[in-house]
Amino acid sequence: MLTTVETTNIKKLEEGSIVTPKGFLASGVHAGLRHTKKDLGVLMCEVPASCGAVYTQSHFQAAPLKVTQQSIATENKLQALIVNSACANACTGEQGLLDAYKMRELTAKHLGIAEHLIAVSSTGVIGELLQMDKIAAGINLLKPKDSQEAAHDFQTAILTTDTVMKNACYQTEIDGKVVTFGGAAKGSGMIHPNMATMLAYITTDANIASDTLQTATKQVTDVSFNQITVDGETSTNDTVLVMASGLAENNPLSPEHPEWNKFIAALQLIFEDLAKQIARDGEGATKLVEVKVKGALSEKDARIVAKRIVGSNLVKTAIYGADANWGRIIQAIGQTSVTVNPDNVDVSIGSIEMLKKSQPVVFSEDLAREYLSGSDVVIEVDLHLGDGEGIAWGCDLTYDYVKINASYRT
Amino acid sequence: MLTTVETTNIKKLEEGSIVTPKGFLASGVHAGLRHTKKDLGVLMCEVPASCGAVYTQSHFQAAPLKVTQQSIATENKLQALIVNSACANACTGEQGLLDAYKMRELTAKHLGIAEHLIAVSSTGVIGELLQMDKIAAGINLLKPKDSQEAAHDFQTAILTTDTVMKNACYQTEIDGKVVTFGGAAKGSGMIHPNMATMLAYITTDANIASDTLQTATKQVTDVSFNQITVDGETSTNDTVLVMASGLAENNPLSPEHPEWNKFIAALQLIFEDLAKQIARDGEGATKLVEVKVKGALSEKDARIVAKRIVGSNLVKTAIYGADANWGRIIQAIGQTSVTVNPDNVDVSIGSIEMLKKSQPVVFSEDLAREYLSGSDVVIEVDLHLGDGEGIAWGCDLTYDYVKINASYRT
Repeated sequence: MLTTVETTNIKKLEEGSIVTPKGFLASGVHAGLRHTKKDLGVLMCEVPASCGAVYTQSHFQAAPLKVTQQSIATENKLQALIVNSACANACTGEQGLLDAYKMRELTAKHLGIAEHLIAVSSTGVIGELLQMDKIAAGINLLKPKDSQEAAHDFQTAILTTDTVMKNACYQTEIDGKVVTFGGAAKGSGMIHPNMATMLAYITTDANIASDTLQTATKQVTDVSFNQITVDGETSTNDTVLVMASGLAENNPLSPEHPEWNKFIAALQLIFEDLAKQIARDGEGATKLVEVKVKGALSEKDARIVAKRIVGSNLVKTAIYGADANWGRIIQAIGQTSVTVNPDNVDVSIGSIEMLKKSQPVVFSEDLAREYLSGSDVVIEVDLHLGDGEGIAWGCDLTYDYVKINASYRT
Repeated sequence: MLTTVETTNIKKLEEGSIVTPKGFLASGVHAGLRHTKKDLGVLMCEVPASCGAVYTQSHFQAAPLKVTQQSIATENKLQALIVNSACANACTGEQGLLDAYKMRELTAKHLGIAEHLIAVSSTGVIGELLQMDKIAAGINLLKPKDSQEAAHDFQTAILTTDTVMKNACYQTEIDGKVVTFGGAAKGSGMIHPNMATMLAYITTDANIASDTLQTATKQVTDVSFNQITVDGETSTNDTVLVMASGLAENNPLSPEHPEWNKFIAALQLIFEDLAKQIARDGEGATKLVEVKVKGALSEKDARIVAKRIVGSNLVKTAIYGADANWGRIIQAIGQTSVTVNPDNVDVSIGSIEMLKKSQPVVFSEDLAREYLSGSDVVIEVDLHLGDGEGIAWGCDLTYDYVKINASYRT
């Protein structure tokens, strides 16, 4: 977890976007895959950018992810990303792969960039083929710009049934140079089926090599995007992609750089920020739930416990009902494979202690209900075993979750 | 999975109960822990019975489970079980343990049976102490009999918010002797919080030593009770307990016995039967869902995939909405850690093929909706990798699940 010291010199730019870091341009248009909403976007960089990426762990990785990995493998650089919503191009076999290659080829021609510098993303229904005529026509409409309006268009084009746009921007100084991080994400709204995809794109003008950026991306994803859960489901298309233009002109970043920790902290801040936006906009959600675990034998143990609690249907429904059912939190902890001393666990909801050394604490039900009725709920657990700390984020489980997912075609 | 051959000589006794096997008696009374429902039960045997037991894997094992394990450890025999509903006696510290011992002591005195031959169970709210005065008075009211009425009283006393009683009875012949298996279970209704407990008690008059019965119990639990899920939550009190009186007078059973497989098949039939009854009565459930996986590299792999599918919130809501969202099944499979060839998976819902070699099959939406509108849904998956087969059972996820779990105290 980040300490105050680490984040002191990093500021959030409320008006910033994915094109705020130097060198980045974006565009989003309506290609006709969806009725009226923008559904095709491009993010590009003036120069080939260093990149880091992590993908879904699903066995059924969608076609565009395969093409993206091939692009990156060529020169370890990316200069543009083409992305559509409405159709995931997953479970589409050979034709799906050909379509993803075609998307890359058409984007390369339109932007005048080499194919292997282009990443491809799709999000939407599984098992349907892309409408390539519409994609082709749409690509030709894309006019990347570095304006806030263009960023907004891109950020809208990647959404499916999300109820709000997710973006964030942070700024710091490295080697006395201003370094900016911008990000856009989508995920967690699923009125249409199988739209579980989480996509997150982060831009920065930091100067960093792809290999190093890849390591940082993986490391920070583990404590941010991999720690959110809406319903325990893993999409075939999940992607986190970071592009670094290098135009901030700091000295090349590596773990040996004196300000490496500041870079990681800034990256973690923007990852966390986007991850929490996704959790808060979970299907049918009315609350953002944050679970902080400390005292675990390791950070990994702490993260596992935190994610198990925030993913528990019983905990999620209790929070929806503003009911301080700490017994359900205990159940969730008890179910994990990590080391726990069942006789020495503390549980708090908000600032209200519920369990101390595994013994129930008398608390005010009224205060607990009042706290749980708010839009942000924090659960804290101390396992009293070691120094491991971890956080996870999720949302409550509501009637609307069932409605959204049960009533789609009927 | 059981083959027809294995189960041919085993019949289900619709009128049978937990006291149908020779030597067993039961009783159930209202001790006052609940308003009017029976809440205290006893199951006993005329002779010390062989026993097998498996318990929750939760770190927070409740006090009665500790006492039961201590009883069994003494002589590896059980002659009686005392069980209450309404209070789980979990997370109750030293006092809870003393109370569980007291329950055992009082039952021993009342029945004239040695303490170490008595098992103790509790199910209900976590974190509250037992009302021992009521328990003590209730124990004195228990009059074990071998009548169907007495079995019914016991089977009712163990329920919490279950909407139906769960029981089953099977009969076969071993060494030419009639061998009977009776069972009662509870679980999956949770209007009151934290009542996630699953309890299953199985009686048989088969002649079998405790060590052998323990091995059989563990083996059969893995393919029955451990393969059901309502909401992915694990209680602090889950217990499966088998008692064998030996009064059927067959030769002692062991894996070397020529009819060992028939014994295991009968045990598996009654375990499965009770497990399916629990799944069908899951919180808010309207359907029993059965997922059959074949073609996995191992039986364990098959069971993991089956349980993951049946436990997926997205699959469960789709089934509630009678929506043939096979993409969600693919998502669930993709999420497991087992070996899968993403290019060669078949998925059927009922007899309707949806995916063949990972390619979508055109099917009738009307027929699919009609099938999914029934009360029993079977999903079949073929991974085309090996001979591993496995089944899991669950239920749909409905508005009532959220209602039951969110609106408890508010």
